[in-house]
Amino acid sequence: MTPYELIKAKRDGRALAPEDILAFVDGYTEGEIPDYQMSALLMAIFFRGLEAEELGAWAKAMLESGDVLDLSDIDGVKVDKHSTGGVGDKVSLSLAPLAAACGVLVPMISGRGLGHTGGTLDKLQSIPGFRVDLTVDQYRRIVREVGACLIGQTDQLAPADKKLYALRDVTATVESIPLIASSIMSKKLAEGVDALVLDVKVGSGAFMKTLEDARALAKTMISIGTQMGRKVTALITDMDQPLGRAVGNALEVIEAVEMLRGRAPADYTEITMALTAEMLVLGGEAKDEAEARTKLLESIKSGAALEQLKQIVSAQAGDPEAVEDYARLPTASATTEVPAPASGFVTKIDCEAVGLAAVALGAGRATTESEIDPAVGFTLHKKVGEAVTAGEPMVRIHFNDSAKVEDVRARLLSAYQIGPEAPATRPLVIERLVG
Amino acid sequence: MTPYELIKAKRDGRALAPEDILAFVDGYTEGEIPDYQMSALLMAIFFRGLEAEELGAWAKAMLESGDVLDLSDIDGVKVDKHSTGGVGDKVSLSLAPLAAACGVLVPMISGRGLGHTGGTLDKLQSIPGFRVDLTVDQYRRIVREVGACLIGQTDQLAPADKKLYALRDVTATVESIPLIASSIMSKKLAEGVDALVLDVKVGSGAFMKTLEDARALAKTMISIGTQMGRKVTALITDMDQPLGRAVGNALEVIEAVEMLRGRAPADYTEITMALTAEMLVLGGEAKDEAEARTKLLESIKSGAALEQLKQIVSAQAGDPEAVEDYARLPTASATTEVPAPASGFVTKIDCEAVGLAAVALGAGRATTESEIDPAVGFTLHKKVGEAVTAGEPMVRIHFNDSAKVEDVRARLLSAYQIGPEAPATRPLVIERLVG
Repeated sequence: MTPYELIKAKRDGRALAPEDILAFVDGYTEGEIPDYQMSALLMAIFFRGLEAEELGAWAKAMLESGDVLDLSDIDGVKVDKHSTGGVGDKVSLSLAPLAAACGVLVPMISGRGLGHTGGTLDKLQSIPGFRVDLTVDQYRRIVREVGACLIGQTDQLAPADKKLYALRDVTATVESIPLIASSIMSKKLAEGVDALVLDVKVGSGAFMKTLEDARALAKTMISIGTQMGRKVTALITDMDQPLGRAVGNALEVIEAVEMLRGRAPADYTEITMALTAEMLVLGGEAKDEAEARTKLLESIKSGAALEQLKQIVSAQAGDPEAVEDYARLPTASATTEVPAPASGFVTKIDCEAVGLAAVALGAGRATTESEIDPAVGFTLHKKVGEAVTAGEPMVRIHFNDSAKVEDVRARLLSAYQIGPEAPATRPLVIERLVG
Repeated sequence: MTPYELIKAKRDGRALAPEDILAFVDGYTEGEIPDYQMSALLMAIFFRGLEAEELGAWAKAMLESGDVLDLSDIDGVKVDKHSTGGVGDKVSLSLAPLAAACGVLVPMISGRGLGHTGGTLDKLQSIPGFRVDLTVDQYRRIVREVGACLIGQTDQLAPADKKLYALRDVTATVESIPLIASSIMSKKLAEGVDALVLDVKVGSGAFMKTLEDARALAKTMISIGTQMGRKVTALITDMDQPLGRAVGNALEVIEAVEMLRGRAPADYTEITMALTAEMLVLGGEAKDEAEARTKLLESIKSGAALEQLKQIVSAQAGDPEAVEDYARLPTASATTEVPAPASGFVTKIDCEAVGLAAVALGAGRATTESEIDPAVGFTLHKKVGEAVTAGEPMVRIHFNDSAKVEDVRARLLSAYQIGPEAPATRPLVIERLVG
């Protein structure tokens, strides 16, 4: 099938043969098929979708466009977690040491924040010295010796996805569930995991705004993973408001460390426990969720999880003392409170607006080239359902540049809604899907 | 609106503002907007279409990307005809002299054959010496002095369409009614006409296979013409079998000349009369179709139409004697008959298959670079509804290369269907739409 015929077939809703998809993606990666043919195909996929078999071929083509790490020489089940991204989502920072402390190996390749969402790499790098640009050999050694390692994407993993993503980003073809799912899964499966837990976020702060879309994305990712012979479990979780009370890189590290001490906000703790429990089950370290949760609680109580985090930080050249002494983390030069404008209950927090306020403050990236300030961010004193009194502090802004404060304050005030009654809440874990 | 936002808006089914369309098409023509963004937009238009106002802006942007000929200094109404293309469609060759003989000025810019369809320029160039590559000044002078001039597309007219068509051709975005309509209309309106008659062909030999598509294309072209202040009438005509009995360039010229002598096949004569009558009405030379037909018949009977053709041929450096002496036209070195395989009635002729058989014989172009042989082609002794006896000559093949004959014979035999009863027929002119 020529590139032209392949584009036409997809345009007309016909399923493509796996070998034709492989040839097209390979041809594109090697520069033989031009951008303009790929962008036409991407737009046709936006409208027509990809069926299960096409999807598997598409993801496989991207996965095999680069190195696929083989960690099979390391004893033990390797399990990772991927989140579709949200605001205040510091789950990886506590989940990796918790899972590793309970015997699951965690090889984790993470991303940077972009748009209104934060990124695990940015959060980790607020720990002094912490390096995410390790070699594959270092990564492999740390997974083996320490049990978990968190690094950044390398150019050798799924280069087709990198090239394709840049094209999608300028041709309005990002928002396609099969393309999103293939992009995520090709990167995750390149890191050498046996199983994967997916945290598919839904709500005002997530890329998926509706439960229907979140469910479709989860099922699509599970389909790819299953076709690749990996065990995949997905939880659809709430992202209608920021997770926990800390938003901003160093502030989120502190909250994550507090979680390992059993002192973090309930919502963040629960999401972390639910996801890590799935990892323990997939990793064969617990027979069911109940046993997994018992083990996780023990690792917190005994200090094993905290100790595990220190070992990861040390192994990745970070300052382990920062875990004990938060003053060693970047700290903003000043704080100011945003008082509640009225009395009542917080009925809604526009989560994306809070994320964008964090970007405006310097905590996140507007473009891939933006510099971030690891110290700045917010402490959300009040979350949805909580009572407030007019004038009472509602959000604390941690800032370094006072010129940004008024804009950020206005953004936060319009992100919060206060009403006379506490709203109905939905569960944190909305659905569980198993591959 | 950025190019990204514009692609996204169209993708999501939102109407684009005319000024945004103009900026995008201009940016593309000037090389500021890359092919990959245009191809994504084209695919989004394939799925979402263009509304009337968007369509007008799109066609206007293409029209104004190059020169727009102004013939307003020439007294008289300038009217052209455009056909969406078919097999055996030599209408322009008789229509232009007929209309001009009746007082309508005909500035006609035509195309070459491609795929299974023939092209007016190729047919004209089978007349020895005939030139279609005239300058704009020569074209203008011949329209003024002779009344009609038939030339080829120049690089100065609608260059955006040329660039865009090349991109559509490799990105499977050709088959979009708004894009086809804008492409045709931008070229036609650039030639300086006041009014236009459209021959939208439907059937097995046409690009539009269904009446619904043909009607949509006609309406879309009328909408563009009306928005540009031009009068447009469209006839939807049958192309379920080749028009007339001659297929092949010099053979079609002979049939066209015969029409001006009142001796051509009924179907070809009727389509020519119907379209030319519309031109006379639009050109103000007849108050209605009946009066127009009377005038046309008179111009045939008096020899004025034939004399007009000779003048056009002379003015364009062709040999006018070829109109009287067909031996001066290219003639194939040999002929052979394809006998009917059975007795009965011709129930169907796969028109596209006949066109492709002509290409295989050398009468048409497989690619834009192909050379054609002006002498070769077919005489269709039998057409749909006519009785045949087994062994009786059904089609005559005029050929120069005997190596091609067996393939062509097989193609023709499978294009013809013979059955026990004459099929029901549909009218030649199926619908008439007025702007």
